[in-house]
Amino acid sequence: MSDAYVHGYRPRENERLSDQAGTLVELLHADTAYPPKAAVLEAGCGVGAQTVTLAARSPDARFTSVDVSADSVARARDRVGSAGLTNVELRHADIFDLPFAAESFDHVFVCFVLEHLARPVEALATLARLLAPGGSMTVIEGDHGSAYFHPDSAAAHAAIDCQVQLQAAAGGNALIGREVYPLIVAAGLDAVRVRPRMVYVDASRPELIDGFTRKTFTAMIEGVREPAIAAGLIDAPGLDAGVRALHRTTEADGVFCYTFFKGVGTKASHGER
Amino acid sequence: MSDAYVHGYRPRENERLSDQAGTLVELLHADTAYPPKAAVLEAGCGVGAQTVTLAARSPDARFTSVDVSADSVARARDRVGSAGLTNVELRHADIFDLPFAAESFDHVFVCFVLEHLARPVEALATLARLLAPGGSMTVIEGDHGSAYFHPDSAAAHAAIDCQVQLQAAAGGNALIGREVYPLIVAAGLDAVRVRPRMVYVDASRPELIDGFTRKTFTAMIEGVREPAIAAGLIDAPGLDAGVRALHRTTEADGVFCYTFFKGVGTKASHGER
Repeated sequence: MSDAYVHGYRPRENERLSDQAGTLVELLHADTAYPPKAAVLEAGCGVGAQTVTLAARSPDARFTSVDVSADSVARARDRVGSAGLTNVELRHADIFDLPFAAESFDHVFVCFVLEHLARPVEALATLARLLAPGGSMTVIEGDHGSAYFHPDSAAAHAAIDCQVQLQAAAGGNALIGREVYPLIVAAGLDAVRVRPRMVYVDASRPELIDGFTRKTFTAMIEGVREPAIAAGLIDAPGLDAGVRALHRTTEADGVFCYTFFKGVGTKASHGER
Repeated sequence: MSDAYVHGYRPRENERLSDQAGTLVELLHADTAYPPKAAVLEAGCGVGAQTVTLAARSPDARFTSVDVSADSVARARDRVGSAGLTNVELRHADIFDLPFAAESFDHVFVCFVLEHLARPVEALATLARLLAPGGSMTVIEGDHGSAYFHPDSAAAHAAIDCQVQLQAAAGGNALIGREVYPLIVAAGLDAVRVRPRMVYVDASRPELIDGFTRKTFTAMIEGVREPAIAAGLIDAPGLDAGVRALHRTTEADGVFCYTFFKGVGTKASHGER
C-alpha cells in the first residue's frame, strides 16, 4: 500500500478524525455489532477512531486492527488502552501483505480506507480471502461529490475540488462512496446491501453544525490549504473564499449535506456459489 | 402565480408524475397522516398524483386540493374519482389568491410546488395565514444538485443543468430542496424539522432502477430535450449523450442518488410567540 495518505498525520488531523468519529458514531456504526467470540479484522484502523467504537459495541468479539502506518498503530494502541478495551490486538501491516491465514476471520471491517487506495477492488478481494465462508465484510466510505449546501457557492465547490484532486494525485478517490456497491460486488462478495448515511445539517441541529460542518468537513478542506496552493490548484484568496463560504452554511439560514455509504457483503459458504 | 410550469402539461409528463408518485410513495409520504375530521389544504395538487395517496392514507380527514391549472384540476378530479375517494374537494385557484378564510385549515401540504415559484417564502406565508393556530405545514421538494451517480459523467451533469437553467428562466428553482428548512422558518412557522429522503439506486434495487432512475429522473431530463435545444443551452448530441450517461447508471455496476427534502413546521398557538 504505497499510496500517500492525503489527510496527513498531523496532530490536528488526528483531532479531526476524533471529532468525526464522535459526531458520526450513531449514524455510521449503530447497526454494526459482532457476536461473542467472533474474530473481526479491522483493515486500516488509522489512529483508532473507529476501533474504540467497534470494540466497545461488541465487547465479547475479538478485534485485530491493522494499519500501514506504525505511528498510527501506536496512537491507536494508546487510544484503545485509554478506553480500557482489552478485546483489540493492534498490528502494523499492509492490507496487501497481511500476516494472516486464509479464512481466519469471521468478519472484516473497512472504514475510510478505500478512498486512499489505487486498487480498491484488489484490496477487498485480498481481504475477502481472509474471511471464513459465511462471514461478512463491511465497508464505509464518504463521497465529496455528495456535498452540497445553502447558500450554494462556486468558491466552496472549488475548494472541495482541491481535496478531490489532491486525493486523486495521491492515487485515491474522494468520490468513492457512491461506488461501494459495485466495489464489494467486484470483490466477489454476495448479498451486497448498501445503505447510504446522509448527514443533514441545519440550524435545528447545532451539534452537527459544530461537530460535522465545522470540525469535520470544513476543517478537512482547511487542512489542504497549503498542499493545494503548493500544487497550483488554487490561490490563497480562492481557497480562503471557499472556506468562508463553507462557514457561511453554518449560519441560521444555512444548510449542509454530505453522504457516507455503508455496504455489507457476505462470503459464500463452500459449495454455495 | 404567473410562472410557466417547466415540466409542461403533456400526457407523457402526467405519466411521469404518476410513476414518480408510485415509486416514492413510501419514501415521501409514509410519515404523513391526518386525524379524523382534520381540514387539510393541498396547495398545488397538479394532476392529483400526491392527492390520491394523501387522501387514501387519511380517509377520515377532509382534503381541499387546489391548483392554478384548470386542466390539471380536471385530471386530478378524474383521478380522485377513479380511486373511489370521497374526502377530496378540488378547486381551481391560485396560491396567492385563495378563496379561503384565515385560519380555516388544520394542516397545509405543499409538494413539488415551491420549485416553480419565484416567491416561495411569500407563498408559504400566504398559506400560513390560512392555517389555524397549532396547525402544521408540510413541504416536500426535490433538489437536482443532489443528483450524483456512477459512472460519473460531465455530459449527464450538463443535461441536468439544462433542466436547472430552464426552471430558473421560468422563475423557479430546481435546487430548492436544500432550502426547505430556511424557507419554512422565513415563512414564520415554528418547530421546523426537515428530514431528507434520499433515493439510493443500485443493481440490488431493480424497482428503483426502473421506477426512479429511468422513468422519473431520466425521463424528466429527456423531457427538456426540445426546449433546452431551442433555448440554445445545449446541442442535440450533447443532450443525447447526457441522457445515455444517465441510462448507463442503470447497468449492473451503476449507482444513482437523488434526495428529496421533507419539512414540517407548526403555526404558533395564540399568545405562544
